[in-house]
Amino acid sequence: MDAIINPQRLMADLHELAEFGRHLTGVHRPTFTPQDMAARRWLVARMTAAGLAAELDGIGNILGRSPASGPRLLVGSHSDSQNHAGWLDGAMGVIFGLEIARSFLEKGLPGAVDCVVWSDEEAHFASFLGSRSAVGQLDESEIAEARDATTGLPLITALERAGLAELPRQRLPVGDYIGYLEAHIEQGATLEDNGLALGIVTGIVGIYQYRITLHGERNHAGTTSMARRRDASRALIALAARIDAHLSAHAASDTVWTIGSIRVEPGQVSIIPDLAEMHLQLRDVDPAVLDRLDADIRRITVEAGPTCRATLEMTARTEPSIMAEPLRNALATAAGRLAPGGWTMMPSGAGHDAQILAGVMPAGMLFVPSIGGISHHWTEDTAETDIILGCETLAEACRSLLDPNR
Amino acid sequence: MDAIINPQRLMADLHELAEFGRHLTGVHRPTFTPQDMAARRWLVARMTAAGLAAELDGIGNILGRSPASGPRLLVGSHSDSQNHAGWLDGAMGVIFGLEIARSFLEKGLPGAVDCVVWSDEEAHFASFLGSRSAVGQLDESEIAEARDATTGLPLITALERAGLAELPRQRLPVGDYIGYLEAHIEQGATLEDNGLALGIVTGIVGIYQYRITLHGERNHAGTTSMARRRDASRALIALAARIDAHLSAHAASDTVWTIGSIRVEPGQVSIIPDLAEMHLQLRDVDPAVLDRLDADIRRITVEAGPTCRATLEMTARTEPSIMAEPLRNALATAAGRLAPGGWTMMPSGAGHDAQILAGVMPAGMLFVPSIGGISHHWTEDTAETDIILGCETLAEACRSLLDPNR
Repeated sequence: MDAIINPQRLMADLHELAEFGRHLTGVHRPTFTPQDMAARRWLVARMTAAGLAAELDGIGNILGRSPASGPRLLVGSHSDSQNHAGWLDGAMGVIFGLEIARSFLEKGLPGAVDCVVWSDEEAHFASFLGSRSAVGQLDESEIAEARDATTGLPLITALERAGLAELPRQRLPVGDYIGYLEAHIEQGATLEDNGLALGIVTGIVGIYQYRITLHGERNHAGTTSMARRRDASRALIALAARIDAHLSAHAASDTVWTIGSIRVEPGQVSIIPDLAEMHLQLRDVDPAVLDRLDADIRRITVEAGPTCRATLEMTARTEPSIMAEPLRNALATAAGRLAPGGWTMMPSGAGHDAQILAGVMPAGMLFVPSIGGISHHWTEDTAETDIILGCETLAEACRSLLDPNR
Repeated sequence: MDAIINPQRLMADLHELAEFGRHLTGVHRPTFTPQDMAARRWLVARMTAAGLAAELDGIGNILGRSPASGPRLLVGSHSDSQNHAGWLDGAMGVIFGLEIARSFLEKGLPGAVDCVVWSDEEAHFASFLGSRSAVGQLDESEIAEARDATTGLPLITALERAGLAELPRQRLPVGDYIGYLEAHIEQGATLEDNGLALGIVTGIVGIYQYRITLHGERNHAGTTSMARRRDASRALIALAARIDAHLSAHAASDTVWTIGSIRVEPGQVSIIPDLAEMHLQLRDVDPAVLDRLDADIRRITVEAGPTCRATLEMTARTEPSIMAEPLRNALATAAGRLAPGGWTMMPSGAGHDAQILAGVMPAGMLFVPSIGGISHHWTEDTAETDIILGCETLAEACRSLLDPNR
């Protein structure tokens, strides 16, 4: 079977996109900044040149519609970046969509591939801003309140400055598509550690997030006996150690958990703290695992004490998102042919626009290796052979989905 | 035996001093503020009226010399307060010194009692600023660099504004004294919990202070497996729990320890921290206990791991200060007579000017109960009967030390 994509053209477009907001070997392209908007306008031009009917909408999304008929797939990712981050995170999936849509038109392959570019997946203003807007999960009040997490700039102002305020927000014509496919760098080291080139995503993890607070009594760190003190910091350490030990023993093999933040008040070396607080995050792809561990964490927290009362507040909760079986199968078949023995099924520990799309249509995702597992840093990279293999695998999966009887 | 002091005059002076910087039922009299300086000038006037030769020096100390001859004792404390703190912390010991010196002169008792008022025991600028200056442990470079911990005001400027810059700093005529006595509120609840009225201080605890840092690797909290991550926050919790368990099992009965501050970097819920840091403070009155626990803490820290390297830096170290036996005995004899069964020997968990004086002459301390163990808060208080009993006990100890053959 002939290759579908043009590897030289793919790499050339990827490198050209990386010039917008270039930062050392990475990019600094926060959502709706001039460098982000220049990249989006360049993408509209590239799609148009490829024969797609490309349109930028009022929230920064770009939909490039193929003029072809027949069954239709949507392929893409996001083009905004974290601050001073990698050149492939989001951008690679976008250029894969462009290259596959372009190759299908060029070669006259059956069916249609549309390319999509989402805005603000990286949550400078709000998580999955663009994809949520496209599927009708973003209301005007959220837009009115959102601000840039780094600069504090209101989203409204950012949209005006970006020239987007006058454009309509477009709803995705969901019924037109048989599915959504997104390629992305893994952002972890599972593929590299196992010498694999491709990861087919089984599902995107759900994230349960908690603020756990210990309430003690502020007192003098010299004159208050150990028996009498109610030390919130000491109670927090004991509780956190108990929760960690429990998760180490009872979590699933893929579960990950992180205490990313700890705060102690008043935070002075000679004062027994009256308040200590931690943020705990739990991720797993299996809803049953999340619910079981959630119950355990709540029970362990309630049992904390006896000197300090513990309270738990769930601060965020997203359910796992399962990738559609027909799309996983199509990706697995393509991977088996193009990289025999070099691929695996795996969950995604990070969130992606595909989890928003999975709510309205079948969705699938493909991972390529991240060198050293590095992500959200300008040193992030992927071997060129892995990039090209990933794009061809995604294209081959599109061909089998759009022309199943071939 | 007749009472030495005048309880009504004692209480009247205490209440009058509490009007300077009054805050609710407490005082706000940070060192060298106008309210602190007004209080110091009032104290000079009260000492002068009592027949003492009182002089304010260039660091804010006041020495009120008795015109009497014979063996000489120094009695006092500090008149500055923590921010919005209690009316008796420091102030009580100062007025005890004034009342005892005044009563000795008035009654013509043998020997001489000088009253002393130290500046900045509460370390707005530097710990034990006044008493260290008096014994020659404060150099000009420290004065030049010190700033107010709350306002950032340079000490030099504060001294100028307080009208102290032109005055000489006086060295204490150490050879004139047979000892230093200081009364203070307990600042803890040992006396109250045991139904006691007086505590005779055996020694002032030494304080060992550490910054312990865990060095991990920053990474994505979703895509980095538990096996691969080097989570500084998780390592800190494990290490802190191990140190706490070890101290709980192996510390002395009076040892206290506090983790008053914890910092995690970058402190975001979805990022595995690459740095976590805690400040650990350890207090005990026995140097052998401190040295043994110090070695244990260093060993446990070195053994931390394997995923994150731990480093330990000792940030402060003061050795325990033993109170002189003849002064302890004089206080015990007086307490036994005035409050039979109502007193105990105990360490001081907090630092006091007496530990500075103990380096140059015999020193002793007497505690009165703190209601509810409250300290460094405007609700701090002590029952009036306990205050009066404390002052009379200190006076009686002075009498026996100055006239041992009576």
